[in-house]
Amino acid sequence: MRLGIIGSGKVGRALGAWAAKLGDEVAFTSRTASHAQEAARSAGHGARALDLNALVQDAEVLLLTLPYTEIQRTLAPLGEALRGKILVDVTNPITADHRALSLGHITSGAEEIARQFPLAHVVKAFNAVFAEVYATHQAQLSGRPLTLFYAGDDAASKQQVRKLISRMGFDAVDAGPLQNARYLEPLSLLNIHLGRVLGFGTHIGLSLLREPS
Amino acid sequence: MRLGIIGSGKVGRALGAWAAKLGDEVAFTSRTASHAQEAARSAGHGARALDLNALVQDAEVLLLTLPYTEIQRTLAPLGEALRGKILVDVTNPITADHRALSLGHITSGAEEIARQFPLAHVVKAFNAVFAEVYATHQAQLSGRPLTLFYAGDDAASKQQVRKLISRMGFDAVDAGPLQNARYLEPLSLLNIHLGRVLGFGTHIGLSLLREPS
Repeated sequence: MRLGIIGSGKVGRALGAWAAKLGDEVAFTSRTASHAQEAARSAGHGARALDLNALVQDAEVLLLTLPYTEIQRTLAPLGEALRGKILVDVTNPITADHRALSLGHITSGAEEIARQFPLAHVVKAFNAVFAEVYATHQAQLSGRPLTLFYAGDDAASKQQVRKLISRMGFDAVDAGPLQNARYLEPLSLLNIHLGRVLGFGTHIGLSLLREPS
Repeated sequence: MRLGIIGSGKVGRALGAWAAKLGDEVAFTSRTASHAQEAARSAGHGARALDLNALVQDAEVLLLTLPYTEIQRTLAPLGEALRGKILVDVTNPITADHRALSLGHITSGAEEIARQFPLAHVVKAFNAVFAEVYATHQAQLSGRPLTLFYAGDDAASKQQVRKLISRMGFDAVDAGPLQNARYLEPLSLLNIHLGRVLGFGTHIGLSLLREPS
């Protein structure tokens, strides 16, 4: 899979390095070129650093890992280049102190992004697990696979994203249409509160237990 | 523990019967007296049916399992009787079709209830697992305890509720102040969508996996 990582912060670096290790063709981009170069060097396995336009042209699947407030201005110049691209929204519309959502209930960050960039196929995924977990390149905790919820409105795009999630070893769970990001973004805040405020630390995550009923 | 179940629908009946089996003194109430009587009969273990005033007077812990839209009118006449009572909010502020929240993001059903009934100690708990799971009187799925998140602003009240959650066999996880019900109510909608729309069925729930970090 040709993966383009938009944003070379903790989450983008960790996911990109993991995908590169699994054999994907990974490219990083960043406002600061040296950050993308360092991410690529650190990832190895043929990972490259590209400018945004080249990365978007080349990739099949884009992982959007920018701060939410930078998305509009960063992606707006891309215009037609986003047509048909799978845009995985890894972000959370979060307040400056990272302790609350900046929007929700009647919308979600994912839906806002889809509204702003209607040419792309937005899939919500990877937004509710800490970068520190991704950086282990292990999808389990306590010997059990973490569940990774994903949501979106385009079935084919969701299938592609599901493949990536599963290849990493997560329990991939289709959480429905993109509108259900209204439930996945609060999940990320619950994760942040548990991990950073309530003392559970960053090596946490959810597993969806289920039995036939 | 003296438990008063307000609302004798599926959730109230299942939780009340389970607590009665575990040795709690349980009373049910309902707008329709025969529903409370049937709930008590079905629960056994000394469970009783009482009118609302008698139940609230008697109980240490109240489990609020009414439809969200009935809470204000049902509890308003209680006035002073709610002073110091632990009011466990098992409800979700949900639309008529049970497919979305009716409020959220800048508030939660739990906070609205706490605002309306400031004499009580509101604790959010039990709101994000199906009645069908509670009705099994088992806190595990696939051999693993379900995590039950709870939240509230009064430490002593939270401790009491934690004891009940743990006695049932759940993995009790303190999710912080009552404001974090803003994340627990969306969790319930995620549960509903997974179970009733996306085909996972009702025998589902979450486990919070964690390791030292």
